Amino acid sequence: MKNDRFLRALARQPVDRVPVWLMRQAGRYLPEYRATRERAGSFLALAKNPEFACEVTLQPLARFPLDAAILFSDILTIPDAFGLGLHFIDGEGPRFARRIESASDVANLPEANVVEALSYVSDAVSLIRKELNDSVPLIGFSGAPWTLFCYMLEGGGSTHYHRAKRFMLDEAKAAHQLLNKLADAVIEYLIMQAKAGAQVLMLFDSWAGLLAAPHYFEFCERYLRKIVHAIKADPASANLPLIVFAKGANLHLESLSMLGCDALGLDWTVPIGEARKLTGGRVALQGNLDPAVLYAAPDQIRSEVALLLEEATTAPGHIFNLGHGMNPDMLPEHAAVVVDAVHSYSAAQRARTSLA
Amino acid sequence: MKNDRFLRALARQPVDRVPVWLMRQAGRYLPEYRATRERAGSFLALAKNPEFACEVTLQPLARFPLDAAILFSDILTIPDAFGLGLHFIDGEGPRFARRIESASDVANLPEANVVEALSYVSDAVSLIRKELNDSVPLIGFSGAPWTLFCYMLEGGGSTHYHRAKRFMLDEAKAAHQLLNKLADAVIEYLIMQAKAGAQVLMLFDSWAGLLAAPHYFEFCERYLRKIVHAIKADPASANLPLIVFAKGANLHLESLSMLGCDALGLDWTVPIGEARKLTGGRVALQGNLDPAVLYAAPDQIRSEVALLLEEATTAPGHIFNLGHGMNPDMLPEHAAVVVDAVHSYSAAQRARTSLA
Repeated sequence: MKNDRFLRALARQPVDRVPVWLMRQAGRYLPEYRATRERAGSFLALAKNPEFACEVTLQPLARFPLDAAILFSDILTIPDAFGLGLHFIDGEGPRFARRIESASDVANLPEANVVEALSYVSDAVSLIRKELNDSVPLIGFSGAPWTLFCYMLEGGGSTHYHRAKRFMLDEAKAAHQLLNKLADAVIEYLIMQAKAGAQVLMLFDSWAGLLAAPHYFEFCERYLRKIVHAIKADPASANLPLIVFAKGANLHLESLSMLGCDALGLDWTVPIGEARKLTGGRVALQGNLDPAVLYAAPDQIRSEVALLLEEATTAPGHIFNLGHGMNPDMLPEHAAVVVDAVHSYSAAQRARTSLA
Repeated sequence: MKNDRFLRALARQPVDRVPVWLMRQAGRYLPEYRATRERAGSFLALAKNPEFACEVTLQPLARFPLDAAILFSDILTIPDAFGLGLHFIDGEGPRFARRIESASDVANLPEANVVEALSYVSDAVSLIRKELNDSVPLIGFSGAPWTLFCYMLEGGGSTHYHRAKRFMLDEAKAAHQLLNKLADAVIEYLIMQAKAGAQVLMLFDSWAGLLAAPHYFEFCERYLRKIVHAIKADPASANLPLIVFAKGANLHLESLSMLGCDALGLDWTVPIGEARKLTGGRVALQGNLDPAVLYAAPDQIRSEVALLLEEATTAPGHIFNLGHGMNPDMLPEHAAVVVDAVHSYSAAQRARTSLA
């Protein structure tokens, strides 16, 4: 690996500068992405074609000296593999043709053959690995069961996810059946990506922060734990660093740090120093700049990056990222400022510390 | 006061049963509210007419044995008083005719004569107090500066409030000018409501949870502190219990508990036992059932209420509420179940404790 900063930080080893990648670093804010999508015809045609997926995965790496690549895909591939009919409406986000409405819908849900239905993901991972040629590590990922459950019950995005919560409360048994099916599929999916060449794995639980604590432990974290244990028990994936991003679940960081994963993603609302205390050195931490900072002027961006790096200190185990994904209306030039500011400030910070 | 449970709980005195009221207890989920709104012609015509506002304030109290009334109004009355032209588009929420776009917009913002511009609120408070006839206490309220700032910069609701955050970062000086103007207006507004007869005051900072910690302290909590100090320094309002609800700011509960207010509102994501530890007995706590529980079946609602009351224990200083406002598609019958479950379970809990 030519640049192993990301892997070293995940292993909580010292680095010459803090590694950085940006959630949704491949996406609509890049004109070259929009051109590829135009050629592909639609978001799904792009995501389901390994060549296109490879092309857009590599685009941000050609622009910025990023320390990791992340597979271009969607977090909703698994519900799609369960036959719910994923599609995208421009400007409105993901929609499913069918949604889960009852316990019998759960019972009648066909088994998903993840490896077969999502072979395009496996093909994309292999192709990206080949094209990366060991320049930087490749991250494979999946949506986490609670978040997939929310989308499957709502049939798409939602403001408050009331259908999902009502089902969880009124049909707890069926909810657990569905969450178990999803966890099993996620395990199979991540192991498939590991076998295809992913070097780091990441779980996105975007809606972990929606729940009251008892529901969080019962319907969300429990399934993260199941997945982490299975990934760490399988020879194909046991040695891959695993990152869990339970967005908004900052009150549960201590518990999350005991899942057995290697790193936790942080949204921007928790100070990284506080997160380090709560997680007691058990995991590396990935984050956590407020993505809105990318809308600010370059000088302001640099000063916010510096503030975060000072809060993080030079202690090992920090991967710089945003606290949430990039948006289509962000400027590529501002992403460049973030990446440069992270590298240059953290290098200077280390030089300063070694002199002291 | 015929029913002083709410005031006793705010003073952290023992109560025979836990007092309960529900955020947005007067609203579209009630058919009688929809009928009044129909007669008024629009939401704003309703909110700006003291007779209509009084009528809808009292409607939930006629249905349910609630322990408090809250003035029917909107959190955006103050930006409206600054001349931004508040209006409502059905199904889309609040919009302003003008929004703040630059530092010069802040400098040129006319002074708001809150007492004159919002005299309809003062009139509504007086009328409601008269009609309540000391049955239960009346809560007056205001939106808090950071939340008002967000709406004024965005011109309405928003997903991520990027305009507001960009202005905060790039135009920090003008942001503070605006936040100071808003804080002064909020102080004047709450004192006006106190003079008109409000018996409890509440500040809603709905977007407190959007911010990274350094921004939270600088642009949000600082102005809550300014208001709390001014309210506690004015003879007209000093003796009124003051509740601060900084939604989503659960990582800052310890700091919030030192503001000098009497109670903190809690959203549903923080366990109330944990919140009590963080706030060290300095304040009463109001909350914090996940509002989505109202979509569940009555048995399930009762069991979730019991779970929360067990977590809260019988320690003094708990006012039961939802962790966020009620929605138009909730069933009035389910609100009745919550109120009854709180009263009956907490009374039994106290009987059990006194026997033990």
